[in-house]
Amino acid sequence: MVILTLNCGSSSAKYQVYDWENKEVLGVGLVERIGQDMSNLEHKVQGKEEYTAEKHCSNHKEAIEWVISIILDKEKGCVSDVKDIKAVGHRVLHGGELIKKSVIVDEAALKQFETLIPLGPLHNPANIQGIRAAMQVLPSVPHCAVMDTAWHQTMPSKAFMYALPYEWYKKYNVRRYGFHGTSYVYTSKRAAILLGKKPSETNLVIAHIGNGASMCAVKEGCCYDTSMGLTPLEGLVMGTRCGDIDPAILPYMMEQAHISPKEMDTIINKKSGVLGVTEKFIDRRDVYAGHLKGDKRCTLALEMETYRMKKYIGSYIAALGKIDALVFTAGVGEMNPLYRAMAVEGLEGLGIKLDPEKNKASVTRNAETCISAEDSSVKIFVIPTDEELVMTEDTYALMNGSYDVHTNYHYSFEEPSYENKDRARRFKQDVLKHPELEAIKAIPQG
Amino acid sequence: MVILTLNCGSSSAKYQVYDWENKEVLGVGLVERIGQDMSNLEHKVQGKEEYTAEKHCSNHKEAIEWVISIILDKEKGCVSDVKDIKAVGHRVLHGGELIKKSVIVDEAALKQFETLIPLGPLHNPANIQGIRAAMQVLPSVPHCAVMDTAWHQTMPSKAFMYALPYEWYKKYNVRRYGFHGTSYVYTSKRAAILLGKKPSETNLVIAHIGNGASMCAVKEGCCYDTSMGLTPLEGLVMGTRCGDIDPAILPYMMEQAHISPKEMDTIINKKSGVLGVTEKFIDRRDVYAGHLKGDKRCTLALEMETYRMKKYIGSYIAALGKIDALVFTAGVGEMNPLYRAMAVEGLEGLGIKLDPEKNKASVTRNAETCISAEDSSVKIFVIPTDEELVMTEDTYALMNGSYDVHTNYHYSFEEPSYENKDRARRFKQDVLKHPELEAIKAIPQG
Repeated sequence: MVILTLNCGSSSAKYQVYDWENKEVLGVGLVERIGQDMSNLEHKVQGKEEYTAEKHCSNHKEAIEWVISIILDKEKGCVSDVKDIKAVGHRVLHGGELIKKSVIVDEAALKQFETLIPLGPLHNPANIQGIRAAMQVLPSVPHCAVMDTAWHQTMPSKAFMYALPYEWYKKYNVRRYGFHGTSYVYTSKRAAILLGKKPSETNLVIAHIGNGASMCAVKEGCCYDTSMGLTPLEGLVMGTRCGDIDPAILPYMMEQAHISPKEMDTIINKKSGVLGVTEKFIDRRDVYAGHLKGDKRCTLALEMETYRMKKYIGSYIAALGKIDALVFTAGVGEMNPLYRAMAVEGLEGLGIKLDPEKNKASVTRNAETCISAEDSSVKIFVIPTDEELVMTEDTYALMNGSYDVHTNYHYSFEEPSYENKDRARRFKQDVLKHPELEAIKAIPQG
Repeated sequence: MVILTLNCGSSSAKYQVYDWENKEVLGVGLVERIGQDMSNLEHKVQGKEEYTAEKHCSNHKEAIEWVISIILDKEKGCVSDVKDIKAVGHRVLHGGELIKKSVIVDEAALKQFETLIPLGPLHNPANIQGIRAAMQVLPSVPHCAVMDTAWHQTMPSKAFMYALPYEWYKKYNVRRYGFHGTSYVYTSKRAAILLGKKPSETNLVIAHIGNGASMCAVKEGCCYDTSMGLTPLEGLVMGTRCGDIDPAILPYMMEQAHISPKEMDTIINKKSGVLGVTEKFIDRRDVYAGHLKGDKRCTLALEMETYRMKKYIGSYIAALGKIDALVFTAGVGEMNPLYRAMAVEGLEGLGIKLDPEKNKASVTRNAETCISAEDSSVKIFVIPTDEELVMTEDTYALMNGSYDVHTNYHYSFEEPSYENKDRARRFKQDVLKHPELEAIKAIPQG
């Protein structure tokens, strides 16, 4: 049985093909520039050479048809019969307060997602388009929606309410929602396993630092607070998003520089963050390289981003009282030791003590590592996230009738013995290059 | 020698008359509703009955003339000869990056303040009007300006820069400035005295919680970070200001509800905060009373405000690594034990442990108290602020030629023996009503 997961952006479609019985990723890929003159496809199958191609796709339906044809291709593909695909899981950005957990998509659900478009104008329309397209291409299997916001629905009102006119909450749904939820489901449960505790006994701060970046305070296994808000703009400094600022800057700059609300939304979402500070880089690898070369603006961006992270770590420790572990995940969190080191520098008083050598050694997306010092009362883990697996499992469970909220449901990766086979294979290659990785691999406890 | 301090708002003028030789407040007062049909005056002189009056004042000049006439009045006044007034200190909200410390006001300084009006459109025009008016009424004495922003000019760039287009900083001065600076000068130096340390050896988190509210991280006696930003809007939940929100809410709501930038600025500054949440109260005494009566919206506002405070305490401890004391000041901070208790609840892991009885007993604006438990590694002080004294001393020192930045200058209240005589008198009355106050009075160390 194969489960396909799809993550459709406005001009892209990311996919993963998963073999349920063997618990193995068969293939992954991405179509970009949908709707433009030429769309690109990148397609990877275990044991085969990476395949790339170009083709005109005028919409998501054509792109998904292309994806299916490649998946089924005798030579390049990884599924022998379309009937093996038993369900499709779709990532959806915003479920608002309406959709608090993963659901099977029917016409009523699609209507609900449509009412949520104002809350997620950049993502939800593309997500819906992708679902509709996939339902046309694969009409006889269940399609499930997995929301980025669902995990965060356990926040207390003091954490999710804004001190704005109350009517804005009642009438316009203005509140904190939070994003990166599937990543937090995965990493929070894995952290519990590494600690040898039940999730319900575990307090965590998780830093999901990618191009977009957010942080989550996890209390007894559930979301207690998070840095992203109504939209994914709030909180940390990101690739192109400003994160926290004085909100009064917006009317001030709108007046000073004659900026419209729409333009302002674009500037704070697409032209700010690390890009705004450096005036050239979005990718933190470029910022890091620039910093090493002595580019002052890169150093400033690095300092601003990691200082903001540090302040959020402190604020969430205050919110939770006590934490068992601090977790880093996603591109920057998994791969950049300097960002991690600067974010936790000086936090020994809060029980957070990095082992500098272990931290330096932890550069892999294929294994969980522990980078805290032996005498650190808080463990520091680097846990490569796996949002696709959460989507796959939710989809399977919905199809199967066994799905429930994450506190009642037991994911495969909640087993101490769980292993991502694909990553385990790649990790062996990582270790060949960096033997020190083997020593810092985090071992599930209990 | 008498030093007059003035704090002019758009329709108000607050004043204090200080006897420099005897280190004593002679009188205080307030004119409100300047420019309206009838202006009100409240005037208090030590040992005399409070005096109130009404009169039409069409502008600040008329109001200040009235103030001077009352101060000099044989019966109601407190100064026998106008020549005894040797200098006037004026509070100015925004000094931007231009004016980093208190200055003697001349035409050039006034021009500089005028260029800063866009940064402080609600306060700076009134501040300037007040200075110009007072210079007309008292033309032969020096007039000094004391900025709310000056104290914060020691922040590192990672704390004061926003992750917005860099050009906004260069061209439009968009950065974090911070406010309540004179309050932080006073309370930070007093906290050092109570700890028996030099300010330069002292790390603090100070919570200035009044109608407006902010927090400050003090590293080795200087400002390291603060919660207010370009304007006094950012940070904590306040009486009518929203504090931190997802900035993307602004363009979202502007589109959803057709709100102009100007209206939006008014809503987030004047109709949000505690007022927005409760839909009726600004004053925290009302919120507190409502909470006790079971009003859920009041409880929510209380929880939101104190939770935000707690998160800032945590984030500043992370920023500083280690703190010697947490200080509460200003109306709510000095007078409401429940707000303080909720803000620090569960912070024992950070070394902050309240003594609940001492906290409950500390309800006075007339003495410094220590409300932490004996085994709290961080001291918790309640320090009634005295912004007027800082203004008075800066003004005297400027006139005298001895003024310098606060790190080089020694204020009278930096003496362990310092005592505010007026407060000491009132404290005796407080103790008659609440004998438990005597026991928690904080004693200067060393």
